[in-house]
Amino acid sequence: MSPMLIDAIAWNEHGLVAAIAQDATSKDVLMMAWMNRESLALTLKTGDAHYWSRSRKALWKKGESSGHIQHVKSIRLDCDGDAILLTVEQVGGIACHTGRANCFFNLAENGQWIVTSPVLTAPGNFKTDRIS
Amino acid sequence: MSPMLIDAIAWNEHGLVAAIAQDATSKDVLMMAWMNRESLALTLKTGDAHYWSRSRKALWKKGESSGHIQHVKSIRLDCDGDAILLTVEQVGGIACHTGRANCFFNLAENGQWIVTSPVLTAPGNFKTDRIS
Repeated sequence: MSPMLIDAIAWNEHGLVAAIAQDATSKDVLMMAWMNRESLALTLKTGDAHYWSRSRKALWKKGESSGHIQHVKSIRLDCDGDAILLTVEQVGGIACHTGRANCFFNLAENGQWIVTSPVLTAPGNFKTDRIS
Repeated sequence: MSPMLIDAIAWNEHGLVAAIAQDATSKDVLMMAWMNRESLALTLKTGDAHYWSRSRKALWKKGESSGHIQHVKSIRLDCDGDAILLTVEQVGGIACHTGRANCFFNLAENGQWIVTSPVLTAPGNFKTDRIS
């Protein structure tokens, strides 16, 4: 991977940068995860989103188990280099390990989080790979 | 603030949660910043986005100095509680301290970050308040 791409990123103390995935068509924000250098390099090389699972401490190709791969359309870095924005084509229309279209399904309303989005495919029907 | 809202959040080791601001109309992702309990409480109470500045270690009302306030339309929490998504009305149409519409103006292209968005108002023309 180009040093020019790497060096502009303000990797945090764990060598990670926040990565937001946005649907390239609907512009819905799908999820937020983390990338290390290797996952960014693989994302650039393969065109499919790779992240770093902090809980598993492992490289994580999004959709590797579930089939819910993200084909990356663009990669952007923010002004201070500590957040990446991917626009993606979300295979299967499901980004969340709960089987929902995206991970932001809890809406603050009257002092509670209200679940607003339906489960499109019950997690039992695919092998989940979402462990941030 | 409701304990039901607070307790569902997976505050990190610094007591912070990532917060993404998305334009409620265009659906452009504007910026990513961080919130602590107080900034989330003030965001809920006032309807304007408040963050936590990690560099200044201070509460930060977005737009307090620059006038580029964010009126919050919705607040969502993701599946594992470690990211918040705000939809906002961005006053002045400028979210970034560089004077651009949003912070994600560096596009990865041919091994480089290419600046893709114009500066709408030069930072000298407003008092910047963006220090994440």
